[in-house]
Amino acid sequence: MSLALQTDSKGRLRHFLTVEGLPRSLLTEILDNAERFTGVGERAVKKVPLLRGKTVINLFFEPSTRTRTTFDLAAKRLSADVMNISIETSSAKKGESLADTLRNLEAMHTDMFVVRHQSSGAPFYIAQQVGPEVSVINGGDGRHSHPTQAMLDAFTIRRVKGGFDGLSVAIVGDIAHSRVARSEIHALRTLGVSDLRAVGPRTLVPTGIEAMGATPYYDMEEGIRGCDVIVMLRLQQERMDSALLPSAHEYFQLYGLTQQRLKLAKRDVTVMHPGPINRGIEIESAVADGSQSVILQQVTHGIAVRMAVMAMCMGNQAEAGE
Amino acid sequence: MSLALQTDSKGRLRHFLTVEGLPRSLLTEILDNAERFTGVGERAVKKVPLLRGKTVINLFFEPSTRTRTTFDLAAKRLSADVMNISIETSSAKKGESLADTLRNLEAMHTDMFVVRHQSSGAPFYIAQQVGPEVSVINGGDGRHSHPTQAMLDAFTIRRVKGGFDGLSVAIVGDIAHSRVARSEIHALRTLGVSDLRAVGPRTLVPTGIEAMGATPYYDMEEGIRGCDVIVMLRLQQERMDSALLPSAHEYFQLYGLTQQRLKLAKRDVTVMHPGPINRGIEIESAVADGSQSVILQQVTHGIAVRMAVMAMCMGNQAEAGE
Amino acid sequence: MSLALQTDSKGRLRHFLTVEGLPRSLLTEILDNAERFTGVGERAVKKVPLLRGKTVINLFFEPSTRTRTTFDLAAKRLSADVMNISIETSSAKKGESLADTLRNLEAMHTDMFVVRHQSSGAPFYIAQQVGPEVSVINGGDGRHSHPTQAMLDAFTIRRVKGGFDGLSVAIVGDIAHSRVARSEIHALRTLGVSDLRAVGPRTLVPTGIEAMGATPYYDMEEGIRGCDVIVMLRLQQERMDSALLPSAHEYFQLYGLTQQRLKLAKRDVTVMHPGPINRGIEIESAVADGSQSVILQQVTHGIAVRMAVMAMCMGNQAEAGE
Repeated sequence: MSLALQTDSKGRLRHFLTVEGLPRSLLTEILDNAERFTGVGERAVKKVPLLRGKTVINLFFEPSTRTRTTFDLAAKRLSADVMNISIETSSAKKGESLADTLRNLEAMHTDMFVVRHQSSGAPFYIAQQVGPEVSVINGGDGRHSHPTQAMLDAFTIRRVKGGFDGLSVAIVGDIAHSRVARSEIHALRTLGVSDLRAVGPRTLVPTGIEAMGATPYYDMEEGIRGCDVIVMLRLQQERMDSALLPSAHEYFQLYGLTQQRLKLAKRDVTVMHPGPINRGIEIESAVADGSQSVILQQVTHGIAVRMAVMAMCMGNQAEAGE
Repeated sequence: MSLALQTDSKGRLRHFLTVEGLPRSLLTEILDNAERFTGVGERAVKKVPLLRGKTVINLFFEPSTRTRTTFDLAAKRLSADVMNISIETSSAKKGESLADTLRNLEAMHTDMFVVRHQSSGAPFYIAQQVGPEVSVINGGDGRHSHPTQAMLDAFTIRRVKGGFDGLSVAIVGDIAHSRVARSEIHALRTLGVSDLRAVGPRTLVPTGIEAMGATPYYDMEEGIRGCDVIVMLRLQQERMDSALLPSAHEYFQLYGLTQQRLKLAKRDVTVMHPGPINRGIEIESAVADGSQSVILQQVTHGIAVRMAVMAMCMGNQAEAGE
Repeated sequence: MSLALQTDSKGRLRHFLTVEGLPRSLLTEILDNAERFTGVGERAVKKVPLLRGKTVINLFFEPSTRTRTTFDLAAKRLSADVMNISIETSSAKKGESLADTLRNLEAMHTDMFVVRHQSSGAPFYIAQQVGPEVSVINGGDGRHSHPTQAMLDAFTIRRVKGGFDGLSVAIVGDIAHSRVARSEIHALRTLGVSDLRAVGPRTLVPTGIEAMGATPYYDMEEGIRGCDVIVMLRLQQERMDSALLPSAHEYFQLYGLTQQRLKLAKRDVTVMHPGPINRGIEIESAVADGSQSVILQQVTHGIAVRMAVMAMCMGNQAEAGE
């Protein structure tokens, strides 16, 4: 069903809502396209005319300067016209339904919506509403999915490690509430990572994680032992305010990534984090800024991956009349 | 005086502040130009270079994501550089007068201001202040005027009905407080609609409406009987909070457009609404989404009409120095 | 040290953080470049392709619609892609450090940051953090510096007076708390103004102003007598709320620029103000709007000067990797 909604009759990407259910060939196609777009950011003129005259609307129901900025930049580097609409401050106030807001924006001949929403599933709902000339990209929905983040992480791993086969990857932190973790597990499993570990306290590693293809580890040191890649998740303050977690200090004692602990992983281990970092809570500064960290490369790759996904979805749309 | 302020010595459009006082030939010229711009939104590259290198400032003293978005998009599709300035959050705080703010923005070689203001007349004041190289477009002022909305409605009617002669058009709702209704009555009268009806409760249909060329109807069923076009106005919540109206429920009972009532109009009646819709208050969902509704086409036409007005005003400006 | 940070090994502008310490030749080069860019604003197509495909981020930690608008416009007229990020409403909330926010934005291949910050020195800190492919422009930091404002004032003086030699220039108002005054004194001294006067109440003229090259005057009439140029500073409301100043009325009595007082200056005196003006507090309307005022020309020149500085910094960046 996810596959059917996201692809056209020839199996080409129409929307990008989740990595769950997408075939390995399609994920690899995204990575290969992103590879070509990385060059754009390094040129003197960082712009290609692929989406010239297209209208992209960033529809953010949940504030996020960082994610919005990356999509905004990606669209501008593809030469699209971009409009940022923050829905909290907009027609929601006038009592208009989401469906009516969407139909209105679509009637302006919008070509693409990038949607960020606090409710899981919202981008799916939107993709079901829009016509065949519009694409929807999920910029993060509730606890469900953050597929471009997962793909930029996969892209970074492939660049650094050359591929996915035989890798041990540990995802560490609040697995249960993280859309990044969910999407990442799906992406890396599909791309061929066989040893995938979900590391965190029992309260934050969901039961049934094995069914998604990851092995649970409740002990940090066991969890990262011998790993090729460690993906640290951001700890949300609200978890600590709830009863699910002890103090930030205690969390760091148990699950913080330190130089000392890093020695348990492979010598050439790669350290990743989706950002923004909580220094001294989930990761030690020496590690975040160390030679094995690729945290800033992830940001750079994020633009290329988003350009790839935008260009693919837009290129596969039904042609507009004429 | 409106005519003199809005046109140059050759009668060409310089500013677009109100339809009141503009000759039929000029309104027809706007519609004809809009006809050409509708094609732009349907192309793969939705962009024409007409306003390349021009600076358009959306100067919004009253928040409106929807209207701002349409002007922003129209300007971008004409290749202009667009800046959105929201005055509530801006220099007003620093105690600068409107005149000084304007002179400053004008000194930056701004070519066009799109003005939305809660006070009737503000765009006129601004048009009087600016120099001969600047155009002003009224994006809605107080209860006075919303000329681009009136023209997009006229454009939609002409597209659907082929013209204006012999049509019966009913405008239903809060006529008294609606800038849309005022502008619409002027536009449709000038364009040749002879049977124009203002339908609503006595408290919301202004006395003296006949002088504007419309016939008052206080009974909904009488008002829409035999009509070719019904324009439903949005009911503002604040009217219901005041003593002017009974409850939303009672309003819908008396003036809501239902499928049942729609049968009183002509068989090929066209239903319009400027949006955002209050479903179940002024209009039944089955009618809003029904086969006679052109509500979303109005939105699409809004971009073309705004492009036409912007291109005309800008094309008729005094040439900048050299 | 300011010079070393702001210029490359060949002495060319890399960042524009302060005029303090920059040689006269470099300031003159900025003015000469600005002269060429003034033409762009007067053309039908107000755009040059110099920064096409470059990414400029306006990073505003302190709100300022006016200054942001001028940088936004300048960058757009140079054909750059511009992103406006207001940090109060952004990742600062998520507890990310400024250094991490910057590294992130830099990792997106940003070419230039325009920084406005309430803390003196912030743009310097940022310039030290970024890599060789990024330029930083100071859009105003604390009480320290506002170099583009100083250069647009210098540009305006040179245009009106033909040069700087032999001029008497009075800067009037709250010298002590004004970043404009500080930058202006440095710029005009470097450019050759020999008679530079700092005029204001004792509480607002810093001791040691002579070391900067300006002569203190505590009496308005003495201070402006025989002057070629009078630069009035904006009086901040918060000064009056503190004990540093009497009422606005009393301030105007003592230091307001009136037509009467203006007669004490040279007959062809030029009146300047960085805006926004407090009419009737620091300046009489008849003077602000009078024939000797060049306040609006300053705004126009501000765009040209900012285009010049942006183009120079960007043109002197290390070339990005192939």
